Amino acid sequence: MQRVNLIPGQLSFSRMVQGYWRLTDWNMQAQDVVRFVEQGLELGITTTDHADVYGAFSEEGMFGQALKLAPGLRDKIEIVSKCGILFPCERLPDVNVVHYNNETDYIVSAAERSLRELHTDYLDVLLIHRPDPLMDADAVAEAFSRLQQAGKVKHFGVSNFSAAKFALLQSRLDFPLVTNQLEISAVHSDYLFDGNLDYLQQHRVVPMAWSCLGGGGVFHDFQYKALRDCAASIGEQHNASLDQVLMAFVLALPCQALPIIGSGNIERVRQQAAAVDIQLTRQQWFSLLEAARGYTVP
Amino acid sequence: MQRVNLIPGQLSFSRMVQGYWRLTDWNMQAQDVVRFVEQGLELGITTTDHADVYGAFSEEGMFGQALKLAPGLRDKIEIVSKCGILFPCERLPDVNVVHYNNETDYIVSAAERSLRELHTDYLDVLLIHRPDPLMDADAVAEAFSRLQQAGKVKHFGVSNFSAAKFALLQSRLDFPLVTNQLEISAVHSDYLFDGNLDYLQQHRVVPMAWSCLGGGGVFHDFQYKALRDCAASIGEQHNASLDQVLMAFVLALPCQALPIIGSGNIERVRQQAAAVDIQLTRQQWFSLLEAARGYTVP
Amino acid sequence: MQRVNLIPGQLSFSRMVQGYWRLTDWNMQAQDVVRFVEQGLELGITTTDHADVYGAFSEEGMFGQALKLAPGLRDKIEIVSKCGILFPCERLPDVNVVHYNNETDYIVSAAERSLRELHTDYLDVLLIHRPDPLMDADAVAEAFSRLQQAGKVKHFGVSNFSAAKFALLQSRLDFPLVTNQLEISAVHSDYLFDGNLDYLQQHRVVPMAWSCLGGGGVFHDFQYKALRDCAASIGEQHNASLDQVLMAFVLALPCQALPIIGSGNIERVRQQAAAVDIQLTRQQWFSLLEAARGYTVP
Repeated sequence: MQRVNLIPGQLSFSRMVQGYWRLTDWNMQAQDVVRFVEQGLELGITTTDHADVYGAFSEEGMFGQALKLAPGLRDKIEIVSKCGILFPCERLPDVNVVHYNNETDYIVSAAERSLRELHTDYLDVLLIHRPDPLMDADAVAEAFSRLQQAGKVKHFGVSNFSAAKFALLQSRLDFPLVTNQLEISAVHSDYLFDGNLDYLQQHRVVPMAWSCLGGGGVFHDFQYKALRDCAASIGEQHNASLDQVLMAFVLALPCQALPIIGSGNIERVRQQAAAVDIQLTRQQWFSLLEAARGYTVP
Repeated sequence: MQRVNLIPGQLSFSRMVQGYWRLTDWNMQAQDVVRFVEQGLELGITTTDHADVYGAFSEEGMFGQALKLAPGLRDKIEIVSKCGILFPCERLPDVNVVHYNNETDYIVSAAERSLRELHTDYLDVLLIHRPDPLMDADAVAEAFSRLQQAGKVKHFGVSNFSAAKFALLQSRLDFPLVTNQLEISAVHSDYLFDGNLDYLQQHRVVPMAWSCLGGGGVFHDFQYKALRDCAASIGEQHNASLDQVLMAFVLALPCQALPIIGSGNIERVRQQAAAVDIQLTRQQWFSLLEAARGYTVP
Repeated sequence: MQRVNLIPGQLSFSRMVQGYWRLTDWNMQAQDVVRFVEQGLELGITTTDHADVYGAFSEEGMFGQALKLAPGLRDKIEIVSKCGILFPCERLPDVNVVHYNNETDYIVSAAERSLRELHTDYLDVLLIHRPDPLMDADAVAEAFSRLQQAGKVKHFGVSNFSAAKFALLQSRLDFPLVTNQLEISAVHSDYLFDGNLDYLQQHRVVPMAWSCLGGGGVFHDFQYKALRDCAASIGEQHNASLDQVLMAFVLALPCQALPIIGSGNIERVRQQAAAVDIQLTRQQWFSLLEAARGYTVP
């Protein structure tokens, strides 16, 4: 599988990324997770996406049990995790409102908690999970600097940030933010037109793409019938499934977006990963866009 | 009271600013205004906000009567005024439509009129009041240059400008715009999310914040009941009034926004100014945001 | 007629531009087109606007017949053309969906087709017609470089681009994009407020303005009655027609927008071109804006 340089010579990701957002729903034991990671590696998927907040702050711990069982896996994969969201749940008894925290000490302690949960010494990349109106960019830069100097986090990025917020944080750092993880799909195409992907392409920042299949509604909601029909027709020409056509839509973007696969079913992962070999024509791509939006481009 | 540097070593403002938008409604004589300014100074409020257009072009004149009566006040305060809006009123008999004028000669003459009205030799800061689609940035820069070289205005800024308009004007100046005066409050929180405050934080430009209490509707309109209830609950924990909680919401922003107090009642001014000592927790701040917007952050 | 520098010493346009979007509807023979161009030149209109896609890919060919008949015209005019849109039509039998193509080879071949159709050796300016979510800026830069080195296109620009997309493409070029052709009129005034014209003014990029008369609806649609009445009143003061007042509205912008005249009737062209001599007052300009939008500026 193709690899994409996020920082040439320092950091590359597999073109498709395995997401663990729903790991805690997959009914896996640690040994199952080990096997799942290994099967991903056989497909060339080395990059794994996590967040402290996934599974109500228990996803990292589950993945960590796998790394504890098979420590040799650690150096074969890249671990991306995130911090900054807090919400009421069992692990956070003092929290009573969904909120963000991006203070220096909080970020450092959250990353250290991620390391403990994940049974690892370092994160390849730590992302600020959400744009926070209370974010003091200098405070975030100070946290990043401490974590980097301690060897605990190698690289940093953001998630769901606008171009303006990205520029703000970047202005305080003497190293580049390596990614911005965004929701990108045929049914969530705003970023393609509002300047955010233009900004990333301009600065050669490779985004990670979440929810490329549109959150599942694409598969059955009536409003997406035209998109399903269009994708089915295109799929016939490529001998490809709906999943694959939707993944290929994101893979066609010039910003080289890296789709995150959300499934824990290795057959479905294999199928979606195979989308890297599908080259949609421009007419096919614009047909999908038109079917998803309900109108042609001007 | 805390002071905030707008240009280190050259210009600082008190954290809370006294606004004189409604001075002409306060039923004050010149001697009353002198006393009101002095009482503000006792609270540490040195920065005063004006505009030629306030009071239908009569506010500056009323304030100027106070400075004429007590000229010693001038050097104890900072005077911020604005120009560029014209609308039909007694003082502008030739005007029949609300419009803007930011031509070189107009700005210079408007600033000179402000000096005469205010009975002073200089403005600390002159702001362009509104983003004007006919603004020729070179013409504004020429006006600023003339006023600065004549010693009539020390510093310059803008009001209600987008980041794009700010960048345009800044690109023509060889000194920094010192502020952008914006409407910022729990009920007018767009700037927290649309990139405008991010832009100011990035460039370390300190905004002034107008209408921090949401224009008064917060105190009685039914649509703000959830916000009132939330603020009341938080107020109990800080022994603080609704005014103070709403001011503390703005004071918590990382851009160091300087709230403008609109009241002419010195007791209410004292109360609002005391908000500088209230440190909302992040949970309290996000509770207010959620109550004002009606939905949680994602 | 005034000329405007797009690149000082290298490229200037006449303040009013003749558009040929609807040439194929004008019932003209080649000799008629020659005469029309000559009449435009007598008015000082040297700049002509085209696109491969106009007239379903037949407009350039019609204009080219005129240049073939009167080759001496070529050096007296500037030719602006565009590429990148494809849609189902007789000339494109393989196209079944409206889409864009801005791949390197496509742009080069499209420009070469324009040269053949237009019976000329060079374009003064080639524009990318629409912002394309699949635009790889490096690929476009490569096409521009090839066309420029071959002497086939002298300068490059864009059309309907946002500031973000403009900045992206500019970042890949070592020469300046010379224009951004945008829809600008009293009834389509978004660009005046959303930062896009601010961005162009900041970077001293002169936009071309299409549909300055609002697409014709202004002349009869009920929703524009207030605008018509306002323009009529202003027209009386300047002894000017509705066309002229609407053109003068665009001409007043500080970005020095160059209006494109869409008419093929030389009398109407002469009338619209005469708008360059109308100087709207600021009050007149804001009256038109208010009448078009239905509310005053704040």
